Amino acid sequence: MQIKQILAEAAVGSEITVKGWVRTKRESKNVTFININDGSVIHNIQAVAEAGVLNEETQKLITTGACVAITGTLIESQGSGQKVELQVKSALVYGTADPEKYPLQPKKHSLEFLREIGHLRPRTNTFSAILRVRHTLAYAIHKYFNDNGFFYLHTPIITGSDAEGAGEMFRVTTLDPKNPPLNEDGSVNYKEDFFGRETNLTVSGQLEGELGAMALSKIYTFGPTFRAENSNTARHLAEFWMIEPEVAFYELEDNMALAEDFTKYVIRYALENCYDDLVFLEGRLKEEEKNKKQEERSELALIEKLKFVIDNEYVKLTYTEAIQILLSSKRHKEGKFQYPVAWGIDLQSEHERYLVEKHFKKPVILTNYPKDIKAFYMKLDEVSDDVPGQTVRAMDVLFPGIGEIIGGSQREDNYEKLAQRCQEVGIPIESIWWYLETRQFGTAPHAGFGIGFERLVMFVTGMTNIRDVIPFPRTPKTAEF
Amino acid sequence: MQIKQILAEAAVGSEITVKGWVRTKRESKNVTFININDGSVIHNIQAVAEAGVLNEETQKLITTGACVAITGTLIESQGSGQKVELQVKSALVYGTADPEKYPLQPKKHSLEFLREIGHLRPRTNTFSAILRVRHTLAYAIHKYFNDNGFFYLHTPIITGSDAEGAGEMFRVTTLDPKNPPLNEDGSVNYKEDFFGRETNLTVSGQLEGELGAMALSKIYTFGPTFRAENSNTARHLAEFWMIEPEVAFYELEDNMALAEDFTKYVIRYALENCYDDLVFLEGRLKEEEKNKKQEERSELALIEKLKFVIDNEYVKLTYTEAIQILLSSKRHKEGKFQYPVAWGIDLQSEHERYLVEKHFKKPVILTNYPKDIKAFYMKLDEVSDDVPGQTVRAMDVLFPGIGEIIGGSQREDNYEKLAQRCQEVGIPIESIWWYLETRQFGTAPHAGFGIGFERLVMFVTGMTNIRDVIPFPRTPKTAEF
Repeated sequence: MQIKQILAEAAVGSEITVKGWVRTKRESKNVTFININDGSVIHNIQAVAEAGVLNEETQKLITTGACVAITGTLIESQGSGQKVELQVKSALVYGTADPEKYPLQPKKHSLEFLREIGHLRPRTNTFSAILRVRHTLAYAIHKYFNDNGFFYLHTPIITGSDAEGAGEMFRVTTLDPKNPPLNEDGSVNYKEDFFGRETNLTVSGQLEGELGAMALSKIYTFGPTFRAENSNTARHLAEFWMIEPEVAFYELEDNMALAEDFTKYVIRYALENCYDDLVFLEGRLKEEEKNKKQEERSELALIEKLKFVIDNEYVKLTYTEAIQILLSSKRHKEGKFQYPVAWGIDLQSEHERYLVEKHFKKPVILTNYPKDIKAFYMKLDEVSDDVPGQTVRAMDVLFPGIGEIIGGSQREDNYEKLAQRCQEVGIPIESIWWYLETRQFGTAPHAGFGIGFERLVMFVTGMTNIRDVIPFPRTPKTAEF
Repeated sequence: MQIKQILAEAAVGSEITVKGWVRTKRESKNVTFININDGSVIHNIQAVAEAGVLNEETQKLITTGACVAITGTLIESQGSGQKVELQVKSALVYGTADPEKYPLQPKKHSLEFLREIGHLRPRTNTFSAILRVRHTLAYAIHKYFNDNGFFYLHTPIITGSDAEGAGEMFRVTTLDPKNPPLNEDGSVNYKEDFFGRETNLTVSGQLEGELGAMALSKIYTFGPTFRAENSNTARHLAEFWMIEPEVAFYELEDNMALAEDFTKYVIRYALENCYDDLVFLEGRLKEEEKNKKQEERSELALIEKLKFVIDNEYVKLTYTEAIQILLSSKRHKEGKFQYPVAWGIDLQSEHERYLVEKHFKKPVILTNYPKDIKAFYMKLDEVSDDVPGQTVRAMDVLFPGIGEIIGGSQREDNYEKLAQRCQEVGIPIESIWWYLETRQFGTAPHAGFGIGFERLVMFVTGMTNIRDVIPFPRTPKTAEF
């Protein structure tokens, strides 16, 4: 029986065996307290061994990090903490953990240090809580889409096309790394590579996702995506997971409604199913922020922040309106933005944060961006006298603290316009003939978006470095474990 | 409202709009029948337009493959087929499909041809049914593990280790493909590569999965895995999805029970949630097998076969017992096996099929294989006089028709034995120091297995080529779409 079950349902007086890892041991003359955790829940169970119950050898081997099976009677707890504890009858040590060598002794460890021992950090309260929340969010995502008639589509990881141009790509190859076969003109002969062409790791499943939506109406992807960008920041990973719903017959407004309903659902699901983990993580964050200046601390405690997102309607406005707000702001007038504000700019993090955290104090959905700062496949807006330039039916969802969490759009469903946009941005039409054909055969309005899973996990757990919300982060010069 | 909902719950007499793709149009003097499908369900809805309701232009544009929105009144069906049909009031054509160019005209297409138009094949009955079943199986997998206290662990896709040696790997790199940086000795200088070392695409998440299980007790992975093997067969993909549960405190017997319970659960879930799709796929398979000789046809119809697996206990026996059965078989004595049978051989497909399909006629779990044909991390058995050589606590689950669907084992949890095995098979201990450390710090008995998702989808859908159960297959010389 796992500790989660024991704490929830085991009857006082019953004999049980707990299997897990020792977090702490405290000995006094008459009694030994052993706190055990098995990862099923944030809480430990305390085993209490009267003097003489365990033989000396066993007693000695039970140290922090050791793996044990302890059998005893579940009794009402004498002390504070849990309602129940285990009165020890016998103990078995599966595996010891030499206190001289085991790095996770019961004291505070920095997140930086824990990253170096990624193979052991899931055994800490912080990382086991993060991983449970991560699991719960992933499950909520599948449940949301399944319950709403979406089909999970596995789009390819190895791709022969670089159509989206979302970023630098990793090459996937089996050619001799030192002496690749060459063509007569001296270029690498990819015809001899495994797939008979140059292939890369996907940056997005969207284009293939659209193929699915043009047949099944509602699909979503949930898989790894990659960026070979040399960004050593707290917000970027070379390998991360992304969710991309795509829906036939959806226009921009439906897409916004989906993004709002979806994010609220999964955050609510985490609150309902990981409450104890979130309480722990809220305490951790408070502790971490004690070292920060008052103005850099979160305005809301973690759980308050999550409830705030669930309970409030997201603000929806156009890019053009957002630029006007920024231009009218005191901060702009006093020249306090680092990057200049003008219609046509790609909004910087400082601009997004001003809108979300200062001006609206709510999640914001920005729409109808200038076409020149967005991808080729986004549907062109009607030209309007009220807008300084050509825009597209794009939307970005901005969250407090982490900025852009979702990017999406209604897609250009008109073949001629899409082919024209390909030409403008330099994508050879023959390289994505299959994508363009969906606009020639039974085209339909459709829309979708992408949400970075790790950004979502950061938001819900309150962690501020993306390397701490994925089990084994991949970043420039790091691929350990 | 999607067609699935309309057929299940819409009230006769209500006015509705159906959005989807035209499968067929049939015109007579007084009336036009338009069959529409939106991918939500295998069934079409029939729209019936009295003469004169649609203008001539619209009527002409409504051809197979066109995308339409048709509004009308839901009435009880006059003909056979569905219980309801749509009495057309108006129609909008979103996108046409030129009958001269659109390849999916209403006639029989070979699976080979459909593979060439992978971007359109989800619009066929066969492939939309497969994709719905695939979704449902994926969802059932997440639901099973979630409901049973497992946490979904995202193990890395890009890996710096080739410890498992499960197969040839794809290299992941950003080095100049033609003139890579070299060391003084002329070898490629991977220190300058993106991750500062040579990296590859993962062949299995197991080793990292074990790290998770040694902290959270019960984890599973579900992600893409890769083999750079030049196998152009109906059973192999270069990119496929795998599920790998790993459980602390499980021994081989618990692992077998999990594999059986898990596979039965997901197959039952598919039967309960995709029954109409499975009926369709059963019919397709029957049709396909008409061209086969009697003895090559399936003994059971598809749904019978699935129920048979659910309703029967899997046969469990050791490798040594299996060899004895094979040696005693008439087929062996008459010299009809292509590959010789003897203790120590890696069982060939013909041997596995004999056991599963001829001898037991049930799913079979084979255990305790010779260590020399299994991976280094499997737990060594006690040596026994009854067994000709050293065995390990391995298990393979064999299914009728497709052979090995699951491979797993109890893991070697003893540090010295594991280090010894690494040495025997030539894995440098320092290359997986993190894996070995779990045996030094709080080691515990644990076990797990891997199940190839596409093999499972093949089994449930009755498809016989693995390229037909994944949306966009990756095989040697093919990475289209």
